[in-house]
Amino acid sequence: MKLSKLVGDRFKETPSDCVVASHALMLRGGYMKYVANGIYSSLPPLKRITKKIEEIIREEMDALDGQEVSFPVALPASLWEESGRYTSVGSELLRFTDRNGAKMVLGMTHEEAAVQLVREYASTYSRYPFMIYQIQTKFRDEARPRAGLIRVREFTMKDAYSFHTSQEDLESYYARCLRAYQRIFARAGIPEVVCVASDSGMMGGSLSHEFMLLTPAGEDSIVLCPECGYSANMEAAECIYHTEERNTEKGSADGSADADQADGADSGIRCGNASLRENASADDSSSLLPVETPGVHTIEELADFLHIAPSSTCKAVVYQKNQDDSFCVLFLRGDLEVNEAKLTSFLGEDIHPAVITEESGLQAGFIGPVSLQAPEGTTVLFDRSLEGLSGLACGANKEGWHLTGLDMKRDCPDAVYRDFAKAFAGGICPVCGRRSLTISRGIEVGNIFQLGDKYSRSMHMQYVDEKGNSHTPIMGCYGIGVGRLAASVCEAKHDDYGPIWPISIAPWQVHLCCMRGDNAEVRAQADRLYEALQKAGVEVLYDDRNVSAGVMFSDADLLGAPVRLVASPRNLKEGCVELSLRGDKASAVKIPEETAVDSVLAKIGELEEALEAKVPERI
Amino acid sequence: MKLSKLVGDRFKETPSDCVVASHALMLRGGYMKYVANGIYSSLPPLKRITKKIEEIIREEMDALDGQEVSFPVALPASLWEESGRYTSVGSELLRFTDRNGAKMVLGMTHEEAAVQLVREYASTYSRYPFMIYQIQTKFRDEARPRAGLIRVREFTMKDAYSFHTSQEDLESYYARCLRAYQRIFARAGIPEVVCVASDSGMMGGSLSHEFMLLTPAGEDSIVLCPECGYSANMEAAECIYHTEERNTEKGSADGSADADQADGADSGIRCGNASLRENASADDSSSLLPVETPGVHTIEELADFLHIAPSSTCKAVVYQKNQDDSFCVLFLRGDLEVNEAKLTSFLGEDIHPAVITEESGLQAGFIGPVSLQAPEGTTVLFDRSLEGLSGLACGANKEGWHLTGLDMKRDCPDAVYRDFAKAFAGGICPVCGRRSLTISRGIEVGNIFQLGDKYSRSMHMQYVDEKGNSHTPIMGCYGIGVGRLAASVCEAKHDDYGPIWPISIAPWQVHLCCMRGDNAEVRAQADRLYEALQKAGVEVLYDDRNVSAGVMFSDADLLGAPVRLVASPRNLKEGCVELSLRGDKASAVKIPEETAVDSVLAKIGELEEALEAKVPERI
Repeated sequence: MKLSKLVGDRFKETPSDCVVASHALMLRGGYMKYVANGIYSSLPPLKRITKKIEEIIREEMDALDGQEVSFPVALPASLWEESGRYTSVGSELLRFTDRNGAKMVLGMTHEEAAVQLVREYASTYSRYPFMIYQIQTKFRDEARPRAGLIRVREFTMKDAYSFHTSQEDLESYYARCLRAYQRIFARAGIPEVVCVASDSGMMGGSLSHEFMLLTPAGEDSIVLCPECGYSANMEAAECIYHTEERNTEKGSADGSADADQADGADSGIRCGNASLRENASADDSSSLLPVETPGVHTIEELADFLHIAPSSTCKAVVYQKNQDDSFCVLFLRGDLEVNEAKLTSFLGEDIHPAVITEESGLQAGFIGPVSLQAPEGTTVLFDRSLEGLSGLACGANKEGWHLTGLDMKRDCPDAVYRDFAKAFAGGICPVCGRRSLTISRGIEVGNIFQLGDKYSRSMHMQYVDEKGNSHTPIMGCYGIGVGRLAASVCEAKHDDYGPIWPISIAPWQVHLCCMRGDNAEVRAQADRLYEALQKAGVEVLYDDRNVSAGVMFSDADLLGAPVRLVASPRNLKEGCVELSLRGDKASAVKIPEETAVDSVLAKIGELEEALEAKVPERI
Repeated sequence: MKLSKLVGDRFKETPSDCVVASHALMLRGGYMKYVANGIYSSLPPLKRITKKIEEIIREEMDALDGQEVSFPVALPASLWEESGRYTSVGSELLRFTDRNGAKMVLGMTHEEAAVQLVREYASTYSRYPFMIYQIQTKFRDEARPRAGLIRVREFTMKDAYSFHTSQEDLESYYARCLRAYQRIFARAGIPEVVCVASDSGMMGGSLSHEFMLLTPAGEDSIVLCPECGYSANMEAAECIYHTEERNTEKGSADGSADADQADGADSGIRCGNASLRENASADDSSSLLPVETPGVHTIEELADFLHIAPSSTCKAVVYQKNQDDSFCVLFLRGDLEVNEAKLTSFLGEDIHPAVITEESGLQAGFIGPVSLQAPEGTTVLFDRSLEGLSGLACGANKEGWHLTGLDMKRDCPDAVYRDFAKAFAGGICPVCGRRSLTISRGIEVGNIFQLGDKYSRSMHMQYVDEKGNSHTPIMGCYGIGVGRLAASVCEAKHDDYGPIWPISIAPWQVHLCCMRGDNAEVRAQADRLYEALQKAGVEVLYDDRNVSAGVMFSDADLLGAPVRLVASPRNLKEGCVELSLRGDKASAVKIPEETAVDSVLAKIGELEEALEAKVPERI
């Protein structure tokens, strides 16, 4: 490909709406173009990358005995009504009616379509297990598309569905799939992707994992334990407050343990812990005292006003259930945040932040667990962080008043404590028990789910076993967003000047620059090299334009081919060309023109080997 | 691939709703499954076929210097508003609103998206010409999906868009593209596809061609001249009535020429022409006579009633314009049919068959050109078939009455005659002038358009020439439906038992049958062959099931691999396997196991060469 003919513009300035590097570089490098909110067209360099990624995915899916199929993008609503998701999924599911008024949806995931496709085929045990997959366009009407290809509304996704007759079989296949995913990411050049336990969310099912590229540009929070390797998505991460409590819901909890915990947890934020501990100990036996707190509404204001740490308060967070708008009041320690995924999962329905009106009887900003006057039907919940605590400040359920001296055991004797809080940096690892948790940002590049029988049961899929008895099969499902994976590789592999594409997915393996294209001899040399490289099967992008070295190199940086060859008058004099690696100026060497193709092939081979070395074996 | 693991059911009975062979065979062979009206999922055999077709298309597009991109499936309505098609295209364009109420469409073709992608890039002459293409899902909300993959609502299409600075450049590229299309169809195994002139329809532009597979299963009518090779889609085929008239709108037209024409045209249908001619001659000078015709509404009833041929009547066909429901009355010779594409193209707007109410003043069934009382705004048109005729019967514009003795020259002196009729078998070829036209049915497997500046102008795309002057570029566009092409190949290449796939797109090259899989030695031989063939890079489907020969062969027929190998106890005794070609029992030969792989490779090579021999050279 000659760069003079490559469709797409490259430019220098980062567009103002770009918050992550991949978004900026892929716009600046002519990889894609904005069409509508969260919707892009792909230009040739991106198309070349995604095709290579798709080929890697295909190879790994085929090695898992996957069979490629394709499901429709536009699906009849009736399929989603069968599974119940037509009503249970929110407005990210795009619903429409066709010209005949039939209700339809744009597929955002294809469990229903997969069951519909094989429901009759898989009616006897001998056909199990099997896996079908597709690589297809999906549409998800995101409320807030962002970060270029990281969160879009229309995207290409590989989605796979496996069918099994036993949990053991699903689990062993799931393990193979997990490994295949690790191979895919390693082959695409990001072996550093971590596999974390996750919340199954709207997919249903019991066990699921996400594959996360750790990067500040990510929109997910991942809880990691560097000590034991524990990792989980924030949504799924358990919050542990006492090492003793780890294996029991009702562990002993005395004041000193609390103080220890308050001391250790999130110490970077709460700096006045020493005095608080004394304070807390002194107040342990004190009774509830109303305190007038005019204009104090937030935990921060309350902590300031009382000169205590937020961790010495009991905070109320109020939601409403989507279905009937009834209230849900959750109490937790003032320094913690609510993990809404855990809350939703416990409630079994979707929620939204409450709109607290006067009629509700709730005193926004002054809600506390003692003498709470909540409307009928309100669900009141207590987070485990409060269990056994005393000497806390909380709302008095009266405008302008709070209480001090709250003793959870004494004042809320009926409270049942559950885990609703977000894990935090410095918290206790639920696996090894050390106070070692760290929180990282990450991009979810793939996910795998043990779905169980959620779809097969609701859609009446059955098979007959050897004895003639009917059973419901169980399923796994496995997704990778192709465009998001491309963007993630760009996040992980770039410098200030552009992407540094791994050899396996680079749009071109070699970028050949002809410096001073107006010099006929240099041009002839570059033409010869271009010809010879193509003949040798090398994917080469040839910058044959008559532009300045600055423009030429900045374009080469933006296009990110891993190997660069430069023909120039100076090199020509020595009968050489310059070979270098993208992003590594020190790697530049002069090589004779005659052996240039061999040197390039060797360099490509080295890069491929280095990448392959990080790919785990199949299981 | 082992057949015992292939996802999908095969069955014997043709589903009742199948009107064409490809639909029936692709359902019966487990190629696809119905999901909703005009919407299917693809099972592995079809997916394998379409991937091979896509690869052929890619190679030919790349050889045309095409650059692969991808456009969104879901597009903002604003893009279609720019081109004017948001309102001009009917309800086959699926319109919807997203969660924020933004108007969107599902792309059925991507001219607007193509212009949007390159509008800034292509702002200077030096970047022309170029072509971009994609292979992507499209949605077209067809009123009447039919015939399986022949007419669906959701489909995969390759659509390409070229951009040029001159008509000459467009034309030379268009010629290369036309050849590339011929190559694609030949490579896919149907070199017999014909290229016909077509009507540009909603795409706009001046010149266009369709690629037609001639088959009774087709839904298009194609007008062909076996004498000179003229071919055109019915929509675009000119109707010629007098050889003298061919090159002039106002050719001489006397009574005898009319009679000649009536005699020759469509003689298989009108059998009473000899007497009619006499009749017509006798009535030539007669005056208009009202005839009471109670209960006579149709041309057939009128002809019966008056004992004349339909060709001696003047028929009225009434439409309404979609935009304002105003009427359009078209008069043509009673034996002819209206070519609505020509009519729409002349009117410049869409029409529908009229609903004639009493208030309209029109007398349905009795409408004639003399003293027509039509509502204000009615367009009255005359087809060229009537020019110069006399002695015709027509409606009297009065319930229950007709006129005889109509003389077009005398009675409709102001009529302007244009070509609005459908061409017919036995009609005059507009190129060679012989009465040689034949009408065939065909499936449109591809189309190419010279779009001109319809999109670039409306969407304000401009480039600057060498002198700094601004111009509007012109475009071509080029489409192929991938699934429809697969189905068309099946229509062209099948027998009663299943498809006979060309080697280039067959889901598997070889079908290996292990007869009597319960015989350990035969099984071992088949296993060895399966292993060896895979090792040699052959795509082999291995029927390893323990089923009857009948089931095994009928499945092999339905799956249509071109080469078949059979291992059986009898063959084994001779140290042989049987090699045959699908659909050619006479081709069966016994070959020693040791050389089986070589024989298979040789057979595949032969099939590939035979196919390649019919592929025209690139230009």
